[in-house]
Amino acid sequence: MKYEPIFPFFRGDSCEFNTWAPKANKVQLELCQSGQLIEMQPQQRGYWSATIENTKPGTRYKYRLNDSQSYPDPASLSQPDGVHEASEVVNLKNFEWTDDDWKNIPLKEMIQYELHTGTFSSTGNFDEIRQKLKYFKELGINTIEILPVAQFSGHRNWGYDGVYPFAVQNSYGGAHELMTLVNECHKNGIAVILDVVYNHFGPEGNYVGNFGHYFSGKYSTPWGKPINFDEAYSDGVRNYIIQNVLMWCRDFHIDGLRLDAVHSIFDFGAKHIMQELAEKLDVLSHETGWEHYLIAESHLNDVKYISPVSSGGYGLDAQWSDDFHHAIHTLTTNERNSYYMDFGETQQLSKSIKDVFVFDGQYSEFRKKTYGNSTANNPGEQFVIFNQNHDQVGNRMNGDRLISLTDFETAKTIAATMFVTPNVPMLFMGEEYGERNPFYYFVSHQDPELNRLVREGRKEEFKDFYDNTNNAVDPDSTEAFENSKLSWNIEDNAEKKAMFGCYQTLIRLRKEHPVLQLTDKNNLKISEQGKLIVLER
Amino acid sequence: MKYEPIFPFFRGDSCEFNTWAPKANKVQLELCQSGQLIEMQPQQRGYWSATIENTKPGTRYKYRLNDSQSYPDPASLSQPDGVHEASEVVNLKNFEWTDDDWKNIPLKEMIQYELHTGTFSSTGNFDEIRQKLKYFKELGINTIEILPVAQFSGHRNWGYDGVYPFAVQNSYGGAHELMTLVNECHKNGIAVILDVVYNHFGPEGNYVGNFGHYFSGKYSTPWGKPINFDEAYSDGVRNYIIQNVLMWCRDFHIDGLRLDAVHSIFDFGAKHIMQELAEKLDVLSHETGWEHYLIAESHLNDVKYISPVSSGGYGLDAQWSDDFHHAIHTLTTNERNSYYMDFGETQQLSKSIKDVFVFDGQYSEFRKKTYGNSTANNPGEQFVIFNQNHDQVGNRMNGDRLISLTDFETAKTIAATMFVTPNVPMLFMGEEYGERNPFYYFVSHQDPELNRLVREGRKEEFKDFYDNTNNAVDPDSTEAFENSKLSWNIEDNAEKKAMFGCYQTLIRLRKEHPVLQLTDKNNLKISEQGKLIVLER
Repeated sequence: MKYEPIFPFFRGDSCEFNTWAPKANKVQLELCQSGQLIEMQPQQRGYWSATIENTKPGTRYKYRLNDSQSYPDPASLSQPDGVHEASEVVNLKNFEWTDDDWKNIPLKEMIQYELHTGTFSSTGNFDEIRQKLKYFKELGINTIEILPVAQFSGHRNWGYDGVYPFAVQNSYGGAHELMTLVNECHKNGIAVILDVVYNHFGPEGNYVGNFGHYFSGKYSTPWGKPINFDEAYSDGVRNYIIQNVLMWCRDFHIDGLRLDAVHSIFDFGAKHIMQELAEKLDVLSHETGWEHYLIAESHLNDVKYISPVSSGGYGLDAQWSDDFHHAIHTLTTNERNSYYMDFGETQQLSKSIKDVFVFDGQYSEFRKKTYGNSTANNPGEQFVIFNQNHDQVGNRMNGDRLISLTDFETAKTIAATMFVTPNVPMLFMGEEYGERNPFYYFVSHQDPELNRLVREGRKEEFKDFYDNTNNAVDPDSTEAFENSKLSWNIEDNAEKKAMFGCYQTLIRLRKEHPVLQLTDKNNLKISEQGKLIVLER
Repeated sequence: MKYEPIFPFFRGDSCEFNTWAPKANKVQLELCQSGQLIEMQPQQRGYWSATIENTKPGTRYKYRLNDSQSYPDPASLSQPDGVHEASEVVNLKNFEWTDDDWKNIPLKEMIQYELHTGTFSSTGNFDEIRQKLKYFKELGINTIEILPVAQFSGHRNWGYDGVYPFAVQNSYGGAHELMTLVNECHKNGIAVILDVVYNHFGPEGNYVGNFGHYFSGKYSTPWGKPINFDEAYSDGVRNYIIQNVLMWCRDFHIDGLRLDAVHSIFDFGAKHIMQELAEKLDVLSHETGWEHYLIAESHLNDVKYISPVSSGGYGLDAQWSDDFHHAIHTLTTNERNSYYMDFGETQQLSKSIKDVFVFDGQYSEFRKKTYGNSTANNPGEQFVIFNQNHDQVGNRMNGDRLISLTDFETAKTIAATMFVTPNVPMLFMGEEYGERNPFYYFVSHQDPELNRLVREGRKEEFKDFYDNTNNAVDPDSTEAFENSKLSWNIEDNAEKKAMFGCYQTLIRLRKEHPVLQLTDKNNLKISEQGKLIVLER
């Protein structure tokens, strides 16, 4: 498989436009400001290209298919007017990077901090994150993990409805603002991980299906058709995703990608797309001079994703695991509904600390099947764990954070537990000062019908957890978004200040204590005495 | 996962009935002769059981669900009156086996012979196959590979419409006749491989969905819903399939299973069902004292299926490969339509002999994607190859065998080529004497609508190969079946006799020549001089 360029790029002043449109018999580049239509030349296997002299960044364009409808570029780098309008030419090479000495943070030393750009600050953009770099350093975290920034419909979205994987959300500040943030992070010793979604496309502004065979007809996901990684024309789709991974790491200096829901990425081909991504990124790492990580979000409890290729794995660097969260959440909140029904035993918390997976081949009453396999050959640094995250908080009807469900002292104990495990700890923004604002699910599609469907779908999901879902906040209301914003003002609030101090201390301990730096799961003894767990490291 | 019994079995005179029916709130055993209804006791996770004293083999029964409808047993061992009627109690233990010294044939020594029971002889049953054991020995083959025998609707079917995986087709002679055949084969030094279908159920008499969650809602196959190996309730389905594999090898002394179309067996769980089958069969082999093989039919050109578990494979023993067939077929017939478009180069035949897979990472114009991976670490004995088989002949509109498409001398050259490769050769019944009768696709569903759908579906498929499909034989006609029967009468026909002699010689050479016994692909040099291929071993 040859890797084809698929977004506009500059050679000097001329810009080469490329698109993969195997479904089209004719493709024209439509320059929107002048109304000019330029014939694209067909290349092999459905690629089309045209080179335009003296193109300026900022040029608006679309691709016109078969002399009929024009659409934004599936690999657009910028959608300044949203998902339905023209794409904008961006020169990814004209940013002045000053992070030459950057070498990434080793996984085993990472303290990750998950944040959602839109609700992290009152203005909800990258610039405001940059204002907090000093704060991050005071806190002690060394890695931020940003929820998806690929262009989605509207301004209020977690990011999982993205439809332009190459375009940085306009309302967050676009491509160059993200580069500025990453550059500053690196200069301050902070790594940047980006959440990317390769399992589906969002429902609004989803035009890629007009160009090529992006979607699978063989499998399904809860969010619509999955991406076609193994059927006819999948080479073009694979190239698109591979180019996306390479773009983030090469052109945006991103240190790692968090691959959303790999359990909904279906590939029965002879080389799994995960393995191919890992291999391509490995080659890139040799060029950039630093390692870039691939971290899977997976519900499968299957080490295949993170095991080396030599032993039949896909060779990703790490994966998230929910089991520690579920174990400690059920023990501290006494919740037992829905997927929490499988948890609630003290020894499960011990097992999650010792083995990461509580389910490594046991029957789950919730899933109604046996699942999981053994982590024995995978060190602790291959697993990212958390006390809460955007999903575990935001998928609750009231968006409650852990501190609202337990109490101040318990929240501190839970945090301390996370920091003494051999895994990579991850905080959810605000957790470090005991934020009590909720974090809701929110959308702002332009199509009211879509918003209605989301609203009803969420209510339906909540029925597993709550008797009465009448008071659920409407995901498409501005309140859902505004009320999810962090409240900050730590200095003015004794509780927040105390919690912040606690996290500072725990993180310092984690980073300084020689034993807590070890990620070897095998040098760890754990035993229970009633509700007391004794961990010896 | 605990393995639960799921078909009736005897302890002395009493018979234990077991069924997996997690969808039912109440299950009754209906004894059809007496009309008696016996309450089944619920066991854990959807299993139900009842023990009946003094049960006689031959007893007819059904399972009555929720006080409403009665259905045949999903794990029925016999359907004497077809797919819609009562199941029959069979005692699998009361057969007198006399094959104590049997040890199976090593894969590398196998010469396989694929046969379809219904058309192998005029009466189309197991007894007639048994009459040919002397013939097989004269020919020199040491393994027969029988197309699926699981109960299907009607009497005319290739076997891929089976709906009772545990019941031996009544019109072939049922369970004890199959045992008799296997026993005699073993006494004559012949191994028996059975084709089994674990990717879908046939369309008629398919009642299992009333009992449990047998089918996947997440994936699809060309033949309908695939079997549920990884979703909720999949433990019960996996147990059903595992028990089926164990039954054939333990109770029927079957030497190997040919797993139909594993590319349509979808399992994203942490342990693939293929791996689990291999592990279970390995345990059984220790009990029976001889090795039982699992041989995958796969279109994926992916060695994952046959590589050892230690290097991330599923640990199956071997797989079929079409590439040798396609390479030699195109060169000798000049056909280039449909999937043959990817073949036709002399060097592809060389590659198929040297590496088995012609496509081990190349782009296929027919599939419109890159596929396959390297066989470098897998010896030749892990690949079964053929000049023709039931699919390659029977999926042609006119059911033409290779000899009808080429000529007598070419057919001999093709045979010779197969026998000098380092792979496991497989003949298709009749090939050894140059049978010129066609082998059609045939069905005989009771539902005329199903027959109509099959008829039209086949015509649609043929459009890729033929300009005019008006003369296609109707699959549901008796002619399609009757005309597919072998003509035999070798002695009376000089061409047949000569071809038989040629195969005899080739097989003897293969078995006796020390070089031709080697399955090491690496000690093999191959080069082309125009249309001449020089193979040095």
